[in-house]
Amino acid sequence: MRESLSVAEAREAVLGETALIGAETLAAADALGRVLAEAVDSPRAIPPADNSAMDGYALRAADLSGASEGEPAALRVAYEVAAGGGAPRLLAAGEAARIFTGAPLPPGADTVVRQEDTDRDGDTVRVRLQPPVGEHVRRAGEDVQAGETVLEPGEVLGAAHLGMLASLGRSVVAARRRPRVAVLSGGDELVEPDGDVSDGRIVASNSYSLAAQCAEAGADSFYLGIARDDPADIERRLRSALGADVLVSSAGVSVGDRDHVRSVLEKLGCRLIFWGVLMKPGFPLVFGRFEEGPLVFGLPGNPVSAMVTFEQFVRPALLRMQGRRRIFRPTVRARSAERLTKRPGRLHFVRVSLERNGDAFVARPTGNQSSGVLRSMTLAEGLLLFPAAAEEIPEGADALVQILDPDVLAREASEI
Amino acid sequence: MRESLSVAEAREAVLGETALIGAETLAAADALGRVLAEAVDSPRAIPPADNSAMDGYALRAADLSGASEGEPAALRVAYEVAAGGGAPRLLAAGEAARIFTGAPLPPGADTVVRQEDTDRDGDTVRVRLQPPVGEHVRRAGEDVQAGETVLEPGEVLGAAHLGMLASLGRSVVAARRRPRVAVLSGGDELVEPDGDVSDGRIVASNSYSLAAQCAEAGADSFYLGIARDDPADIERRLRSALGADVLVSSAGVSVGDRDHVRSVLEKLGCRLIFWGVLMKPGFPLVFGRFEEGPLVFGLPGNPVSAMVTFEQFVRPALLRMQGRRRIFRPTVRARSAERLTKRPGRLHFVRVSLERNGDAFVARPTGNQSSGVLRSMTLAEGLLLFPAAAEEIPEGADALVQILDPDVLAREASEI
Repeated sequence: MRESLSVAEAREAVLGETALIGAETLAAADALGRVLAEAVDSPRAIPPADNSAMDGYALRAADLSGASEGEPAALRVAYEVAAGGGAPRLLAAGEAARIFTGAPLPPGADTVVRQEDTDRDGDTVRVRLQPPVGEHVRRAGEDVQAGETVLEPGEVLGAAHLGMLASLGRSVVAARRRPRVAVLSGGDELVEPDGDVSDGRIVASNSYSLAAQCAEAGADSFYLGIARDDPADIERRLRSALGADVLVSSAGVSVGDRDHVRSVLEKLGCRLIFWGVLMKPGFPLVFGRFEEGPLVFGLPGNPVSAMVTFEQFVRPALLRMQGRRRIFRPTVRARSAERLTKRPGRLHFVRVSLERNGDAFVARPTGNQSSGVLRSMTLAEGLLLFPAAAEEIPEGADALVQILDPDVLAREASEI
Repeated sequence: MRESLSVAEAREAVLGETALIGAETLAAADALGRVLAEAVDSPRAIPPADNSAMDGYALRAADLSGASEGEPAALRVAYEVAAGGGAPRLLAAGEAARIFTGAPLPPGADTVVRQEDTDRDGDTVRVRLQPPVGEHVRRAGEDVQAGETVLEPGEVLGAAHLGMLASLGRSVVAARRRPRVAVLSGGDELVEPDGDVSDGRIVASNSYSLAAQCAEAGADSFYLGIARDDPADIERRLRSALGADVLVSSAGVSVGDRDHVRSVLEKLGCRLIFWGVLMKPGFPLVFGRFEEGPLVFGLPGNPVSAMVTFEQFVRPALLRMQGRRRIFRPTVRARSAERLTKRPGRLHFVRVSLERNGDAFVARPTGNQSSGVLRSMTLAEGLLLFPAAAEEIPEGADALVQILDPDVLAREASEI
């Protein structure tokens, strides 16, 4: 087992063990945010036939030669074509057909003129301009040709993709399934939120923040409850995690005498890959895996440490597993509102709020940075990266910030 | 009814009619992404008592005066305190207590020394350093003091907030409810995805992309189906939308002879506020509202127009309704990979992909920008804003881009 890795080394080790998850076939309407696991070919052209992009008149452009505001061309209105309807016959020279948006272009017609550019008088329509041939006509296959591959495996299914699938008549689609994450808390001092917190007992709140982080990363979590500091209890709970894709254990996987989780994991066949990452918060992180089972993350027990290590390692692994290409949080450069100092050796993740000022950002630490103080995370809009080797970030100096809430990157409406 | 508004005027008109939605009380674990509708005070201090931040020994710092690597101080190990346990008696001078992370500090002790800085020999522990008083002790109330307001109304509940609520023993919470959006498609040419598309009929794909856009904006949608071009059918369907917070109608609300939706809306009591926005795609947008009922958006029928107008107007309204402060998409400046030209007068939303190069972005149009071509949206990572008055964006010039997929703002791991 490797020890005391840099954040980059640890990330590489985790992603090196992370394999693509299987696919499932599900209702297209339920597939928002999933990664497509098939190539989608179109069974048909979209639109299926030449049709009108406007409400107006379908006609032959040649009949309007020389037409203008002062000298409109007069055409006989032969019939009407509604969207979803069809033309009764070929449109002859000198004729126009009343047409509505989406209606198929009548045979014989080659152009559509907007209603606004015409005057109607009984069966006659006067057109006040000479349009280019094909204007306001949406061509058959303009969006998609029959047989064309319109979506590629690996694309993340967004709202436009679901619209596209519907337009192709697809009601089911093959996509990467959501990873299943088993979440375990451990420690005799822990109780559930409705438990008795006298005598120094504390709520196992990590289970709740980690489950939410799983959901944010597109994963389903299931909660194994609180394991007592007792190998038999730990083993019983861990056995039910062996079918999961990922096991996240908060506390109980470190070097303390009472930390039984690690030995139970090894007994069950978990190969431990590294222990300790040169970061703060979050040094005591354990990573391992079962050969035919879950990746295992033994996160530190402090609330902030657990969340920050999840962000750096578990989240990218969950996204990579789903086949996403972009697995890291957005980053921006921001000026530090304060002078920051530390000892060299560990990469610090400083919880900051962000203020936008035009194209520039200012990052300000969210109060007490102790790893026990969850308030610093509820206020955090980003994590400022204070590099391992650095001892100081002067006030006003630039630093890289991982964005936890992408909405902070929005401009005010008045700037758009 | 106002006509032909600028995008900014239209946005202001929409937000001016958008009121905060009601609150509901729900399970805290289900409240991820909701906006808090109450102030949350802590019933207790967190942590509830002074406790150890490390596995090691609790002791009196004064007993270690002058201790060093070469001359360790020897203390008698009096007893052991586990997390969730308690101390049997006051720790006397010259004594140490074996202690584990999270365990309450024994009375008499003031400091914790890490296991790694000690050597144990039977009942004696030798400490190889002289720590400052209070080291590795987490103080009672360090995170939260009893009675303190820890979460304010208006905060968006993220993973850290759910952890915080759990740690306070809160299992339910008051939050803004999810807006309910009725989605209607209209037109005789439309069929559902499993319908027959011969004779120029097309799938009502907008219903599916718009429902997904609602979900992305934290709203629940329900689908009213496809209304025929028949006032009675339209009225029957619209009546079931009157209890919704928002009605989104795709197609059927414009100036064409066959567009009955608008007259039915007015008959039912909808006040129409504006028609037409100086944008492309998306000009024929209608906005109105029922006095005691939903906001009404009559979106253009073209697939791209419908999605882009939803992005610009419906999404910000849905987020504002939920009490979110940040209601606009992230924006970045990007260099245009191509020269872009247009006639002045309308703000164009150019669908672009984005490439990151260090701190710079390059925006490149995603092929055919016709409003019927949904492929331009499935490939789009952002919408480049080509200002209304402008006629040209030269190749390499800067432009503002609304980000549709915030993950494009991530750096590669190697840069972090």
